Amino acid sequence: MPFTERTPRVAAARALTRRQGRDKAGRFLAEGSQAVREALAFGEVHELFVTAVAAARNADLLDRAAGLGIPVSEVTDKAADGLSETVSPQGLVAVCSLVDQSVESALAGRPPLVAVLVGVSDPGNAGTVTRVADAAGAGAVLFAGDTVDPHNGKCVRASTGSVFHLPVARSRDVAGVLGACRDAGLRLVAADGHASIDLDGVDLAPPTAWVFGSEAHGLDEDVLSLVDEVAKVPLYGRAESLNLATAAAVCLYASAREQRR
Amino acid sequence: MPFTERTPRVAAARALTRRQGRDKAGRFLAEGSQAVREALAFGEVHELFVTAVAAARNADLLDRAAGLGIPVSEVTDKAADGLSETVSPQGLVAVCSLVDQSVESALAGRPPLVAVLVGVSDPGNAGTVTRVADAAGAGAVLFAGDTVDPHNGKCVRASTGSVFHLPVARSRDVAGVLGACRDAGLRLVAADGHASIDLDGVDLAPPTAWVFGSEAHGLDEDVLSLVDEVAKVPLYGRAESLNLATAAAVCLYASAREQRR
Repeated sequence: MPFTERTPRVAAARALTRRQGRDKAGRFLAEGSQAVREALAFGEVHELFVTAVAAARNADLLDRAAGLGIPVSEVTDKAADGLSETVSPQGLVAVCSLVDQSVESALAGRPPLVAVLVGVSDPGNAGTVTRVADAAGAGAVLFAGDTVDPHNGKCVRASTGSVFHLPVARSRDVAGVLGACRDAGLRLVAADGHASIDLDGVDLAPPTAWVFGSEAHGLDEDVLSLVDEVAKVPLYGRAESLNLATAAAVCLYASAREQRR
Repeated sequence: MPFTERTPRVAAARALTRRQGRDKAGRFLAEGSQAVREALAFGEVHELFVTAVAAARNADLLDRAAGLGIPVSEVTDKAADGLSETVSPQGLVAVCSLVDQSVESALAGRPPLVAVLVGVSDPGNAGTVTRVADAAGAGAVLFAGDTVDPHNGKCVRASTGSVFHLPVARSRDVAGVLGACRDAGLRLVAADGHASIDLDGVDLAPPTAWVFGSEAHGLDEDVLSLVDEVAKVPLYGRAESLNLATAAAVCLYASAREQRR
């Protein structure tokens, strides 16, 4: 008999769809084939829940989980829906240990490229920037201030597994995060559409922490006053702006390419 | 009395939510404050439909429309929902002339940077790439093959008005579109995650048409055999890929910056 939404282990997992529940249990949910594959490869997985339909589609992943000694339990569609934080439930969810570490630990390797999110409340944006940062070879992503929890289901999904790939940290203390970046030898460069300097006017060869604000509100003056440089992605046409993920892609890749020249 | 979904002009506008209806009427719908603002500034607007709530929020736009002699009609919420192609109807819709032109006309100014979409069926992706192309100063966006209609409501919305900003063309004939680019003096560079050459290995100073495929399927061999060069955005970390919009942002901005050095 498949587990239902009232089965205690499913109910306990459901609590992980809320930030408070995740922080209390020290666990979060990775949903869908891609996230579960990355969780099995790079994360610490405690158990899997899967619907009959999803089990048929993901036999390879269930084999891998079995090989790792990870319990796999069949659940009803309704139970799976209750474990989903996304619009189209995937029927496959892994219960994982939280991936975040302290800011200091995330920066301990003194990475030459880091992304800092300040007040990014949209989980899809935060996850997509994490994916871009991973692709660009950033050594850490720091979720600062009122930024969404990196373990939020929509963020995990948008990151397509990247939350498992590189060090992730979160802290409410924005000034503390920026100070830790400076202590790790990083120049702080904020991306701001109203900056007077273009990306091309900034020396991107030195170790750099790019600071990104929310798509709706950008970065406030308090934050801008704490960085070394404020730069904008130039808008050559008539577009008023770029969205956060595409702007971050341009900034992070400009650094990545410059640092590898 | 506000118009309802049965009012003939509303029913006629509703037909514009389908491609066939748009092509027959030569008109499409631009929804929401931003798209309507750009339509009034850069497009040809025939009339506006607005709910009472949206009218209160968009008094400036309605004034501008009135100043331009454009009819504005109040509609019921249900009628507005029927004119919406997006998840959260905005209550404000402009009926506009189609913006596309022939491929040859879009390339007539011999722009140094062009984006070509081949088989991009997701309207949000196509719209976001159009926005990025606009921001990067591209001179045209060409919707080739089975690519979504640029006038699709979700595409218009994701473009945040960019479909009104730069020449847009569509053609089923992929080889014809690529040939027209070459005739306009453009080098054809395809973005493909499996390419052996990095972005950095390509000379991006000459006039370039970037060719992008769908996020799910990429570009097929037929298309790749027609371009001058195939390049990938390098993945420096563990991410398996970038999404289409962020990859296009990196490619188009790499060209834009190189061409301005």
